[in-house]
Amino acid sequence: MKPVYVAGVGMTPFGVLEESILELAETAAYEAMADSGTIEHKFDRVVVGSQNPDEFTGMGHLSTLLADRLGMVPAGATRVETGPSSGSSAFEVAYAFVAAGLADLVLAIGVEKMSSVDRGTASRILAKMMSLENETRYGATPTALAAMVTRRYMHDFGLTRDELSLVPVKAHRNGAKNPLAHFQKEISVETVSNGRIVSDPLTLYDCCPTSDGAAALVVMSKTKMRELGCSDRAIKVLGVGHGTDYHAVQHRLSLTSFGATVEAARNAFGMANLHPSAIDVAEIHDAFSILELVNMEDIGFVDSGKAIGLVRDGSTQVEGNLPINPSGGLKARGHPTGATGIAQIRDVVLQLRNESPKGLQVESPELALTHNIGGFGNNMVVAIFGAA
Amino acid sequence: MKPVYVAGVGMTPFGVLEESILELAETAAYEAMADSGTIEHKFDRVVVGSQNPDEFTGMGHLSTLLADRLGMVPAGATRVETGPSSGSSAFEVAYAFVAAGLADLVLAIGVEKMSSVDRGTASRILAKMMSLENETRYGATPTALAAMVTRRYMHDFGLTRDELSLVPVKAHRNGAKNPLAHFQKEISVETVSNGRIVSDPLTLYDCCPTSDGAAALVVMSKTKMRELGCSDRAIKVLGVGHGTDYHAVQHRLSLTSFGATVEAARNAFGMANLHPSAIDVAEIHDAFSILELVNMEDIGFVDSGKAIGLVRDGSTQVEGNLPINPSGGLKARGHPTGATGIAQIRDVVLQLRNESPKGLQVESPELALTHNIGGFGNNMVVAIFGAA
Repeated sequence: MKPVYVAGVGMTPFGVLEESILELAETAAYEAMADSGTIEHKFDRVVVGSQNPDEFTGMGHLSTLLADRLGMVPAGATRVETGPSSGSSAFEVAYAFVAAGLADLVLAIGVEKMSSVDRGTASRILAKMMSLENETRYGATPTALAAMVTRRYMHDFGLTRDELSLVPVKAHRNGAKNPLAHFQKEISVETVSNGRIVSDPLTLYDCCPTSDGAAALVVMSKTKMRELGCSDRAIKVLGVGHGTDYHAVQHRLSLTSFGATVEAARNAFGMANLHPSAIDVAEIHDAFSILELVNMEDIGFVDSGKAIGLVRDGSTQVEGNLPINPSGGLKARGHPTGATGIAQIRDVVLQLRNESPKGLQVESPELALTHNIGGFGNNMVVAIFGAA
Repeated sequence: MKPVYVAGVGMTPFGVLEESILELAETAAYEAMADSGTIEHKFDRVVVGSQNPDEFTGMGHLSTLLADRLGMVPAGATRVETGPSSGSSAFEVAYAFVAAGLADLVLAIGVEKMSSVDRGTASRILAKMMSLENETRYGATPTALAAMVTRRYMHDFGLTRDELSLVPVKAHRNGAKNPLAHFQKEISVETVSNGRIVSDPLTLYDCCPTSDGAAALVVMSKTKMRELGCSDRAIKVLGVGHGTDYHAVQHRLSLTSFGATVEAARNAFGMANLHPSAIDVAEIHDAFSILELVNMEDIGFVDSGKAIGLVRDGSTQVEGNLPINPSGGLKARGHPTGATGIAQIRDVVLQLRNESPKGLQVESPELALTHNIGGFGNNMVVAIFGAA
């Protein structure tokens, strides 16, 4: 397997934005090319992660369209979709193209434009990733499933409502310092715990927003990195893992553990030949507060039921021993579904380059991890990065 | 780059079918697993090519759903989309996973269920792959663009209406012997030339149908092939190439040559270190009659404007020197968009194993090529195969 590097990153603001899906993707892409000094270079491939551009924007064939708009014709162009983990799955395909030797210079873009349709339509589009016969037909929504996971976790491990609120409070504390975040405002435990109930016990503040936005990465081989002389900024991909779980939550062995995360993390750590304890900073898919805790455990950072202890004692804060989601996570940075996985990688690359925004930079991290969920907890990608 | 093999193939009938998208995919998948003796083996990955399951069937998150239904959890699952070349793009990703060493045993599925929606809706879904600002808003459809290409080709190279009709006549001659083909009936030059005009000069018989169907491949590493003892049936992937062209036809340098095919073929032949003259049999994307001719030229089988000579003299017939589309092609085998690229590979694998249906087997072919189009002529994948 050839070594693979991320040598350029870009990202638009996340939020409810004026720009079209193409403008968002182009903005992030040009920033990543400028960051890596590759604007004038010939790209071999474009890989686009997007969950459902056809229905959210009425525009199809996104990978070809972007190859054209970005001046990359005749480079091969591919769209990758695994629900909300489409971005990290696109990164994984870009990684595979370079690792296999099929390409030396690849642009990976994650993008979603979700605000062009009304909220009801957006919910119906997103519901297609759930099990029709086991979930959707009974009225279950991702939020309702997350509420069930939360309730069971509280029952099994004694988690309290106010303890859970510490997760989004930390997310918003970080988001307030992230100039690209959807929400840049701190919130209190009282605000979260006493917020409007969306699906008991989850309040509005336990749930990530639907956002517009894009992020992009320039992925390259060692040969290309040396040719371009960008070794000083390049971050090495140490491991990539992918795992699935049963599509419907009711078929799984546990409500409070995601087998897909366990599998993806095992594969990524196996490839990197590392133990979870080596990780200095991580971006984890916290679409709902409880997911940050469950996935911290399934990645192997801490035993089952113990993640809240690391939140309570400050370990997951930027200045803690295991900073989680210094970007603000999906909760505060926002969640344009196909963009999230690429944005997570962009954010840990900045961490490893010591270039994160003021107040969000972890102290000299050497190893970072990203974790992205597709479906409701059934299609996960975990990746591990380190200085080149 | 690790060597990669196709060691099992499966395919459903193509046509207007009762089965759901999941049933079609499962049928093809189990046939490919049975063919390779891998039903009891642990797959590392599932890669699904499908153009638009969300809108054609109302069902999303297809890769995870299929990983679950096929008993492949926790294998990583990925959907790939490049319009009507989604199948071959999925194969390319499966190839990259194995070539990179990320996986040893991968199931690649191509599937589309197009008949669940009415024809008008299907046309609107397919139109999303065209350029909104340059084509769709002026009423252009894929058929209209193919008609323009045909008219220009006739003008530049003196092709006549009756000569062009030889292409679908040959397709139907082959399809009549293919028990899985959508159309299994021979037609005459008169029927084609005097058929109902769809977009002048194209008649109904110049246009492929919209179909339901699925095909699947078991893709594996050399290690796995030896472990399973299936070297005798395995076909080696010698080259894979991918190319794009400008999204809108009006931006291209030529109407009668597809730059994306030129690029994809150049990459595939470069990897295989072969010249087009070495190919013994090919499956080419003939969604419209003219496309078979243009792409034969862009692949490099024959000079510009000369392809019709090979059709006229019988070279492209099953018993000719360069059999093209012995399966019946998209025209007669049918075109469930995401399934087509995988079906093409399935068909050339059977050719290389000398297992094609009676009357369709080319005499002892050693090298075969597949060519698949995404969008209207702007996202092509070419692959080359040979005995292992």
